[in-house]
Amino acid sequence: MMNMAMQMMEMHSKEMHSKEMPTSGMDMAMMQECIEACTASEQACTMCAGSMMGDNMARVTGMCLNTADMCSTMTRTMMRPNGMHAESMMAMMRATMMMCTATADECMMHADASEDFRMCAEACRQSAMACQKMTDSMTSTISRG
Amino acid sequence: MMNMAMQMMEMHSKEMHSKEMPTSGMDMAMMQECIEACTASEQACTMCAGSMMGDNMARVTGMCLNTADMCSTMTRTMMRPNGMHAESMMAMMRATMMMCTATADECMMHADASEDFRMCAEACRQSAMACQKMTDSMTSTISRG
Amino acid sequence: MMNMAMQMMEMHSKEMHSKEMPTSGMDMAMMQECIEACTASEQACTMCAGSMMGDNMARVTGMCLNTADMCSTMTRTMMRPNGMHAESMMAMMRATMMMCTATADECMMHADASEDFRMCAEACRQSAMACQKMTDSMTSTISRG
Amino acid sequence: MMNMAMQMMEMHSKEMHSKEMPTSGMDMAMMQECIEACTASEQACTMCAGSMMGDNMARVTGMCLNTADMCSTMTRTMMRPNGMHAESMMAMMRATMMMCTATADECMMHADASEDFRMCAEACRQSAMACQKMTDSMTSTISRG
Repeated sequence: MMNMAMQMMEMHSKEMHSKEMPTSGMDMAMMQECIEACTASEQACTMCAGSMMGDNMARVTGMCLNTADMCSTMTRTMMRPNGMHAESMMAMMRATMMMCTATADECMMHADASEDFRMCAEACRQSAMACQKMTDSMTSTISRG
Repeated sequence: MMNMAMQMMEMHSKEMHSKEMPTSGMDMAMMQECIEACTASEQACTMCAGSMMGDNMARVTGMCLNTADMCSTMTRTMMRPNGMHAESMMAMMRATMMMCTATADECMMHADASEDFRMCAEACRQSAMACQKMTDSMTSTISRG
Repeated sequence: MMNMAMQMMEMHSKEMHSKEMPTSGMDMAMMQECIEACTASEQACTMCAGSMMGDNMARVTGMCLNTADMCSTMTRTMMRPNGMHAESMMAMMRATMMMCTATADECMMHADASEDFRMCAEACRQSAMACQKMTDSMTSTISRG
Repeated sequence: MMNMAMQMMEMHSKEMHSKEMPTSGMDMAMMQECIEACTASEQACTMCAGSMMGDNMARVTGMCLNTADMCSTMTRTMMRPNGMHAESMMAMMRATMMMCTATADECMMHADASEDFRMCAEACRQSAMACQKMTDSMTSTISRG
């Protein structure tokens, strides 16, 4: 399944080797290997960082990382007006709200351990509220037609 | 609102300067400026890349970028077992399915322009189906209690 | 090569199914398929969005996307004091500076087409300068030893 | 400094409200607030996840997260042929190699604690090697002119 992007690259290999392209003269097979190795490393690191099973802090750490990624995706989506798809965007807003709220709750359970958790919870709650406001506004826009 | 992370950094500035830390001796105020400048640049680039308003390809480009980010977030979340929160994860699955399906449809409208679009649509559909299967499986697990 | 993370997941499958884990009862093989499908979709979309070969705007779009990702990575790295590795961080700073500067130059070539490009170029230059200041400061810290 | 992207959005607000745009009728000021809140939450979570100062595992966790992000950025850059800028790309390759190598070393120090670390180290080493090969190949291409 991984090969779809590789097939695209294959398909373009001729253009990639044309003199005008910045990829001219580069070894495409080697680049494919490099992409696979980097992706494998990305995944192993993400996995490794979250793997301290049973550890008391593992859950809150994992949830914070998920929220960081979801919020980054949400932010980028909002910055691409041309690519907006209202229905999908509202589903993403809902996912962001739920993730942020759950993470805020989890962080608050560790509030005594460190002030970081309290502050992170606060940022998450504000993010959830901002997404709620945005969703309400989009819903009323859509229903007004 | 941006200052939450900065406040956390402030709060830890003493530890950051302790001899054992890799940050010992670094200029923290300068690093905060650098973080702000990099974030501003990230956002401007994301915006700029998606800004060719009215252009025929702008919508499909924007949707592909959104799907790429959503899928990356979904993947990372699945790789962090400790951080899993079933309800949020299912909301993320739903957002991924909707975004993938909408992008596949949009790509297919350009299928005549380039084979890339057909292949991208195919990858998006497979991703939507895999998320659907995953969601069904999680739902039945939850309902079985 | 992709299977490293999958092997890790395999290795932990027993813990993942223990009653205390949020992954208890989930179908791990199905989740692996879902991870592969999402990763394939992410890669195909990234590729597809950047594939309008020969198009006049394709180069600046691609460079903006690269800079957005590099700046995001740089920002996150600066926010993880415990994970800092001075030598690697300086190599990342250098990569960020070069990518930002090249993107600023490319954007300026399109400044007449849209004000977006001029603003993006400005954000990139500020980011390059902030990274330069940070690098100089780290170098002098290291040489003072 | 954060306002560059906001200014771009401002500049386009008229187009964004035209009937043909998917953003038509949306509250742009509210969306800007939502972007700021999500970004703040992303940064706080990244910071929070990496904040267990002094903890034995904090360094390896932070380094793994940095490597995951750097590898993701490297991968995406390789998938955007149009946006390639040889000099910047080689600087990114160098940063990836250094980060991967340092993380592999750090992981190996914890190899007795869990097999995850050994596997992650292996993926990182393979990634560093693939980037080295790629860099050598690009260098010889450039020097051949």
